[in-house]
Amino acid sequence: MSSTPNAAADVSDLLARRRVLGPAYRLFYDEPVHPVRGEDVWLFDAAGKRYLDAYNNVPVVGHANPAVVDALARQASVLNTHTRYLHEGVVEYAERLLEHFPSALDTVMFTCTGSEANDLALRIAFEATGRRGIIVTRNAYHGVTQALADVSPSLRPVAAHVRTIEAPCKLVGTPDQVAAQFAALVDEAARDLARAGTPVAALMVDTVFASDGIYIGVDDVLSRAAAQVRQHGGIFIADEVQGGFSRIGHHWWAFGRDNVVPDMVSLGKPMGNGHPMAGLVLQAPLVEAFGKNCRYFNTFGGNTVSAAVGLAVLNELERMDAPAQVARVGQVMAQGLSHLAQTAPCIGTVRGQGLYWGVDIRDPDGNASRHARLAQAISNGLRQEGVLIGVSGRQGNALKIRPPLTFQVEHVDLLLSALARQCQAVLTSVL
Amino acid sequence: MSSTPNAAADVSDLLARRRVLGPAYRLFYDEPVHPVRGEDVWLFDAAGKRYLDAYNNVPVVGHANPAVVDALARQASVLNTHTRYLHEGVVEYAERLLEHFPSALDTVMFTCTGSEANDLALRIAFEATGRRGIIVTRNAYHGVTQALADVSPSLRPVAAHVRTIEAPCKLVGTPDQVAAQFAALVDEAARDLARAGTPVAALMVDTVFASDGIYIGVDDVLSRAAAQVRQHGGIFIADEVQGGFSRIGHHWWAFGRDNVVPDMVSLGKPMGNGHPMAGLVLQAPLVEAFGKNCRYFNTFGGNTVSAAVGLAVLNELERMDAPAQVARVGQVMAQGLSHLAQTAPCIGTVRGQGLYWGVDIRDPDGNASRHARLAQAISNGLRQEGVLIGVSGRQGNALKIRPPLTFQVEHVDLLLSALARQCQAVLTSVL
Repeated sequence: MSSTPNAAADVSDLLARRRVLGPAYRLFYDEPVHPVRGEDVWLFDAAGKRYLDAYNNVPVVGHANPAVVDALARQASVLNTHTRYLHEGVVEYAERLLEHFPSALDTVMFTCTGSEANDLALRIAFEATGRRGIIVTRNAYHGVTQALADVSPSLRPVAAHVRTIEAPCKLVGTPDQVAAQFAALVDEAARDLARAGTPVAALMVDTVFASDGIYIGVDDVLSRAAAQVRQHGGIFIADEVQGGFSRIGHHWWAFGRDNVVPDMVSLGKPMGNGHPMAGLVLQAPLVEAFGKNCRYFNTFGGNTVSAAVGLAVLNELERMDAPAQVARVGQVMAQGLSHLAQTAPCIGTVRGQGLYWGVDIRDPDGNASRHARLAQAISNGLRQEGVLIGVSGRQGNALKIRPPLTFQVEHVDLLLSALARQCQAVLTSVL
Repeated sequence: MSSTPNAAADVSDLLARRRVLGPAYRLFYDEPVHPVRGEDVWLFDAAGKRYLDAYNNVPVVGHANPAVVDALARQASVLNTHTRYLHEGVVEYAERLLEHFPSALDTVMFTCTGSEANDLALRIAFEATGRRGIIVTRNAYHGVTQALADVSPSLRPVAAHVRTIEAPCKLVGTPDQVAAQFAALVDEAARDLARAGTPVAALMVDTVFASDGIYIGVDDVLSRAAAQVRQHGGIFIADEVQGGFSRIGHHWWAFGRDNVVPDMVSLGKPMGNGHPMAGLVLQAPLVEAFGKNCRYFNTFGGNTVSAAVGLAVLNELERMDAPAQVARVGQVMAQGLSHLAQTAPCIGTVRGQGLYWGVDIRDPDGNASRHARLAQAISNGLRQEGVLIGVSGRQGNALKIRPPLTFQVEHVDLLLSALARQCQAVLTSVL
């Protein structure tokens, strides 16, 4: 796993050996990256090349954050047990985590992945309401389990008890009009579910609408939608796996931009800075309804090591005052991307806030069939330059930028100048 | 988190603060254990009391195993990334893991929990067969996701596409007769699913039938059942979350006692000695069928740290020659439990092999309503003596004994003498 003089041969050998993982695993980039070391916002490959990480939202307080690694190593060397024994760590972590939520959200359950958290949210919603209907957005992604694939139209057609509605990013009008339209869509879907004999149990939304194209409007989209689904007897589940832990700046949670208190909030990716942990924050009456009929035990969820890691991540985020820092750096990113959109002919719409951004790439001549190819070329070009971002979107032409939250203004500058160069380069190389 | 002079006050305070986890979390024992440190087969509580751990199957190579902790700390301090970048670690671990499987099982996919592995197994079974029918045993438990709760009758009634059959431990006759009966039940269930319009996609069994009462017969129960479901066009999924990694001795996998090669094998609990990791080992054609239509990405599954931890656990198990050691210590346990069954009036049937045992507790006067109370009293008594076991079973009267695999003959002696004492004690205290 250390650097070698013959890194290229290593890569081709590794690629061949990787068959043991089967064909469902995909690698990023035409020429895959082969990192062997990480530090803060940087990755280093086997050949010693350095990459600015503007993609990975999991190592939220930086790759190999020393305080987090230390907490992990220390607790693992002492004790790793589950929640059926008493332990100070998990209780302290739960208390500290809940300090960052509105007081009605007073209970937390621990899982290992965002998928498990969302899956549990559905189980609790079904149990608490006695209903099965679910409303999600048109291109939503909520996780990899069977039940979540059923409510994730970005993966496959949804199940019979699920209705999809257009996400706010696809609605047109003033912020107020968008919020009204979105609430009306919730209303319509709830009525349709009731007519079909599966009344609505929950509206579940990714609070940054990431897979729908990103929407982080400063308005009352979420609160009005929540009010609407509650009027129909359903509950509001905020999926904060993407948007949580200060990702959008100003607020700890993306729902914090709106005057809404969700019934349940699912947490994931950045919670352990890479350690497999996730959770569900919820209002006590819901879990009481669930706990009456169901027990819940997650072998690894909330174990003593995960609690120590989670606490260390919280400490780091608090120490850097993540909501404020992300807002500040995000403002620089916003200005830079906006400037680029005006000057680079291949940059289309820019959406985002804080350190979560989607940048549409478009063919300057408007040839839609070339949008995705250009986005791929820019991403691959950035990778060759030593800058990592992602490509996604329904048309495959959106650049995904969501770096560790320790990203500073100097990193924004590096990213934006590389992006400007690549936008220029593809105009000659691809077109 | 260190030992304190006032441990009792700590416990009552912690119990009150633990409300933040909600009522779905349950603690073991009338007086919960409050461990602050673990070492090999021992746990130590806040008051300094030592407990022999004869219950926890997750820390398979011992609590806080130094080699595993070292691998965890070392890799976490260097790099923790996902499977969309190339990395030697995950490939090496996959190769080393597959060395312990029959050659047809040539592919491995990584998840974070046994639930995620079983859930993925179902998704692949549905995709590969184009069918939805599932056969499980009558009191099966396969995990906590929605889809797994549907096939886990120990949690709740199964879904319409699921048939339950009696587990081998509940069938009567010679080993050969039991195998024939079990295969006939698979046949009948498959026919019933076909008649209902949901032909069988898979037979899924926990290979030690843990939640059904434990069955580890040395016979061809599994191979005949697998042949039967394949005749109906279904596949055979071996859930080795409980039975895997040498738990029953002699073999790395519990299915290894039989002449069967499963189509898929799910792994979990002990895989990372407490680190949240799990996986699915399968035959290439199955995952090719799945990979054609589906992508699979698990954010934390197969990350560089999990791979390093998994490798360290494999190294430890290989170093101690776990299948042989467990067989040897398990033999002593078998003899001791058998002797106890003959001498202690409250010990009923003893089932198990290696280091997985179920011991039925019964009222000496045959009063069935007291079986469970006696089992609870024995378990609580053992806890007071400093020995940890579990209680389970449909009637709540089965002691569950499944210690770390580093359990030695001296530990068996400690456990059995404590158990003999408690069996004696409850005859006076409870009856």
